[in-house]
Amino acid sequence: MGKRIVIALGGNALGNNLPEQMAAVKTTAKAIVDLIEQGHEVVIAHGNGPQVGMIQNAMTELTRSNPEKYIPCPLSVCVAMSQGYIGYDLQNALREEMLDRGIDRGVATVLTQVEVDPADPAFAHPTKPIGAFMTKEEADKLVKERDYQVVEDAGRGYRRVVASPKPVSIIEIDTIRSLVETNHIVIACGGGGIPVFKTEGHHLKGAAAVIDKDFAAATLAEEMDADFLVILTAVEKVAIRFGKPDQQNLSELTPDMAAGYIEAGEFAPGSMLPKVQAALKFAQSGVGRSALITLLEKAKDGIEGRTGTLIRG
Amino acid sequence: MGKRIVIALGGNALGNNLPEQMAAVKTTAKAIVDLIEQGHEVVIAHGNGPQVGMIQNAMTELTRSNPEKYIPCPLSVCVAMSQGYIGYDLQNALREEMLDRGIDRGVATVLTQVEVDPADPAFAHPTKPIGAFMTKEEADKLVKERDYQVVEDAGRGYRRVVASPKPVSIIEIDTIRSLVETNHIVIACGGGGIPVFKTEGHHLKGAAAVIDKDFAAATLAEEMDADFLVILTAVEKVAIRFGKPDQQNLSELTPDMAAGYIEAGEFAPGSMLPKVQAALKFAQSGVGRSALITLLEKAKDGIEGRTGTLIRG
Repeated sequence: MGKRIVIALGGNALGNNLPEQMAAVKTTAKAIVDLIEQGHEVVIAHGNGPQVGMIQNAMTELTRSNPEKYIPCPLSVCVAMSQGYIGYDLQNALREEMLDRGIDRGVATVLTQVEVDPADPAFAHPTKPIGAFMTKEEADKLVKERDYQVVEDAGRGYRRVVASPKPVSIIEIDTIRSLVETNHIVIACGGGGIPVFKTEGHHLKGAAAVIDKDFAAATLAEEMDADFLVILTAVEKVAIRFGKPDQQNLSELTPDMAAGYIEAGEFAPGSMLPKVQAALKFAQSGVGRSALITLLEKAKDGIEGRTGTLIRG
Repeated sequence: MGKRIVIALGGNALGNNLPEQMAAVKTTAKAIVDLIEQGHEVVIAHGNGPQVGMIQNAMTELTRSNPEKYIPCPLSVCVAMSQGYIGYDLQNALREEMLDRGIDRGVATVLTQVEVDPADPAFAHPTKPIGAFMTKEEADKLVKERDYQVVEDAGRGYRRVVASPKPVSIIEIDTIRSLVETNHIVIACGGGGIPVFKTEGHHLKGAAAVIDKDFAAATLAEEMDADFLVILTAVEKVAIRFGKPDQQNLSELTPDMAAGYIEAGEFAPGSMLPKVQAALKFAQSGVGRSALITLLEKAKDGIEGRTGTLIRG
């Protein structure tokens, strides 16, 4: 029986530059089409760390060489561009892999905005470095003129830091739903989504932030009423006492167990911690919702209960 | 009675840089929502000349300053990025304008690929300059390593030229149709669409080309079985003997009259000629199909038959 599955693709599913991306998406597509072939409905969210970094750097170089002509490009606009940059290759890899197997279905990349809350505590402590290294003069100018926050990285110069707030809602959720209900494979929430604030009731304003793609995928899975959230990463199973002689891989967790391990500090911040938190959030959000964390190439086995770490809600 | 309308937005509807774009899309949205408010189904295609030029320039600057790390970014990828760059502002302007009038409907930007034919004669004579000026050394390197075609612009250096082939089909047409049928306003075929060749049956490969957005919009209108193709430009009506003392503005044309004026060289290549050709192509493509060329702010009056130049099929 087909399930509705939201997949969060990590960096290794997309590579670090264009040649790597064009190769990586082919492998990624095979793993995803394995699920589609079994009758599951699939919606794909993905990260954009290296890609949005590259775009931000390119726009910075452009401003440096044409300061009269171009203003610095807002981060939200760079995220929008990264959704096109990645979606183009990813949707074609999926389309080809499906047609190679005789599956004729549409693949759509939906430009997606994700609402964040201006009162999110993350905005008080921006921690996520993005874009190129700058000289002190360049950094000071942007702090003064554009209200950037910057940090010094010993010996390498200054970098902009932005907040990583939690997603509140998916602006284009009806679009994504309409496409899934008309049999499309949908790529959405690229890079965690274009972060926006709601202002004056319903107006949207780009936020200088990046949204964690696993949290965005969890929100997407909730709003899509998905059966599964699948977070694909570099390990087959989540572990406690990770890297120690008595490391223990986890196969199935209740929400209480997951919360307990989080509380005990078993997962590394910025690495496995947000994945387990996002998985737990989805598993707790409604009856019959499960979250799986595993390797890309084990996604199908994981859905069938043979591997990975499952948090069953 | 609501009609299905495909709108082709020209450069003045989007501006030449980000601050201009953010202002221009608000005016553009008002004119489009006037049509939506009257019950018409609207699909929007748009150009991307200044935007894809900026993105191409930014990627060139990045490659210049990091030659070890980055390869030149293919034009098709730059078009994909420009769809995100423009779609983000345009969809928000439409969303805000609709909500300001109490219309609660989804707006979707669909990453769109448009098939072109490798045998299109345009590929034998690339004429469309794109991206930054280069030194002779830079140009020679790209000619040798990446098979670029370049032209020298007296005194300003070398520029890449690419072909402008005719659109053959819209790859994501089912996606666009599904969204229109579920009540969405759709932005598609940005920049004329990402140009792709079909290879090995169903695989797609990015083409180093730019597709004229008016022709892409005509193909989109045909495939959507639209009632109207509306090409918005800088003049209220098409004219013959343009700029001469006896200039005559045209209100309504049969396909035969339009073809005759084209034949007689009445319209400027690269300016009004492709617009009239695209309009004629759509008007001739089926019963009950009409094409309108007018100013953005006259779109509503034009649809109601009060101004603009109409080619009735």
